[in-house]
Amino acid sequence: MALGEFAFIAERLRPLAAGTPGALELQDDAALLEPSAGAELVLTKDAMVAGVHFLPEDPPGDVGKKLLRVNLSDLAAMGAAPLGYLLALVRSRETTDAWLADFCRGLAEDQAEFAIGLLGGDTVGTPGPLTLSLTAIGQVPKGAALLRSAARPGDDLWVSGTLGDAALALKVLQGELDVTAQARVHLTGRYRLPQPRLALGQALRGIAHAAIDVSDGLLADLDHILETSGVGAELRAEALPFSAAARDLPGARDAALSGGDDYELLFAAPPKRRAEIEALSGQLDLPLTRIGEIHAGTGLRVLAAGQEIQVKRTGWQHF
Amino acid sequence: MALGEFAFIAERLRPLAAGTPGALELQDDAALLEPSAGAELVLTKDAMVAGVHFLPEDPPGDVGKKLLRVNLSDLAAMGAAPLGYLLALVRSRETTDAWLADFCRGLAEDQAEFAIGLLGGDTVGTPGPLTLSLTAIGQVPKGAALLRSAARPGDDLWVSGTLGDAALALKVLQGELDVTAQARVHLTGRYRLPQPRLALGQALRGIAHAAIDVSDGLLADLDHILETSGVGAELRAEALPFSAAARDLPGARDAALSGGDDYELLFAAPPKRRAEIEALSGQLDLPLTRIGEIHAGTGLRVLAAGQEIQVKRTGWQHF
Repeated sequence: MALGEFAFIAERLRPLAAGTPGALELQDDAALLEPSAGAELVLTKDAMVAGVHFLPEDPPGDVGKKLLRVNLSDLAAMGAAPLGYLLALVRSRETTDAWLADFCRGLAEDQAEFAIGLLGGDTVGTPGPLTLSLTAIGQVPKGAALLRSAARPGDDLWVSGTLGDAALALKVLQGELDVTAQARVHLTGRYRLPQPRLALGQALRGIAHAAIDVSDGLLADLDHILETSGVGAELRAEALPFSAAARDLPGARDAALSGGDDYELLFAAPPKRRAEIEALSGQLDLPLTRIGEIHAGTGLRVLAAGQEIQVKRTGWQHF
Repeated sequence: MALGEFAFIAERLRPLAAGTPGALELQDDAALLEPSAGAELVLTKDAMVAGVHFLPEDPPGDVGKKLLRVNLSDLAAMGAAPLGYLLALVRSRETTDAWLADFCRGLAEDQAEFAIGLLGGDTVGTPGPLTLSLTAIGQVPKGAALLRSAARPGDDLWVSGTLGDAALALKVLQGELDVTAQARVHLTGRYRLPQPRLALGQALRGIAHAAIDVSDGLLADLDHILETSGVGAELRAEALPFSAAARDLPGARDAALSGGDDYELLFAAPPKRRAEIEALSGQLDLPLTRIGEIHAGTGLRVLAAGQEIQVKRTGWQHF
């Protein structure tokens, strides 16, 4: 028998709110949250639809984690520390209690990993596919948020981690690309469980001029920085960082440039901060790679062997 | 031709964020929000699905307003002043640009009415029905939020406005109840455009012990107060406030007791505050009616002519 709404809230969601006093045990109209003195809040909201943003066969625990992590990645890109989250769970007729139990288990594990708790939300039903919407709240010292709009000519362009893994994983999962069992594990892990770069984002406050997380694709996300900052850029294709699993696969460069869902941080910082950023890479045990420069003017050129190359711009549209 | 995601954001959503500097023109990963010094934040999130929570033929502008108002009603119940909101728009294949334009027009009108602006959100597509999720953020002076859990024996139970209108309107709209044209206008207006009692909620800080908004139904919502406060209550059916349109309709009393969606405030306050509350009613031009009392112990009794009556408890379950 399916759990009714109130039983589901009591048995599955309330434990997720147990460590957040302002959640008021999910028994009130709204949640309370007290930011630190002098803090500015950072708020983000992402929605995911079954069959569109995750695959029906994805492990439910991973779906919960990915939903939380894509929002935490937005907080990371602003340099924010997470405070809490709200969840809207729009349950389809096919959503089983077992699916929800595993989904909530995944959230619980990630709450512990990222020191964040459930504050509140809503549970409703739909005749359509299961739909999830999460609002994450973080904080930064006032005025310290990393914005997209502050890149300056002469800045280095850096990216964290490796690129293209998630887009290649999607091809593997859809049967379009054949890889070794080991590569499959690595790539699908990157696709299902992105790593929000929270420590990096916070460490880059005061160092980077501008930052964004790579969710739509490196070029598309870099375009957002260029447009809002009113600058241009050059990227060196040879500098793009790849995982061992991705490096030699067909389409790896296109995946790194145009594929989305890697959730690494792309940031612009002045050359005089290079030593600090390299030190940060060591401290965080996270590759940080210089892949290009910001210049005055407009436009984005990608160079390979010193020549401009044309890249197919897939340009992810969400509807 | 349908507007693409980025065009839709630029043309329809960005104007809604024009008055909220922290929205960063919807061009960043997240929004910024600075609460007042010493304030505590109040956060709430509600989701609505086409065909479930609103009717396909409802005017889109009213759907936008209702979505915003049900969240503002949660803020009102906590005594909070609104600060901003985030919107997740999960667009179905049938959602037209005209529908969205009118939906956004409704939001714009209500933003002006309730002094709140769009901060951010997400737009995605679904093969299922149009789904909307809104997160509203408000603030209260630290420690001043009205909670459900603080009702005390001896408190009066009060309700604002009139009850049962929305549930009766649903019957009218579904062809189950025949009323005059004038009553139809009044009732459907109450169903489509609830009035969040923001001024009342804020005025009740320091006066009321506990408050909730009547969304699931008077008895169901009173039960939430009783359970979390560990008290019982008696209601007087004769005291229930009705609109002229609802008063003589069949099923009016059941609609007032068990119907949801009225979004009036139900609150518990000590008898010594009666004069202040009555004065408040005059200042706000809003009926405030004493309908019962809180007592020690447990249980909820409804009395009519001094005798306990049994009420069919529909108990709205959201899935």
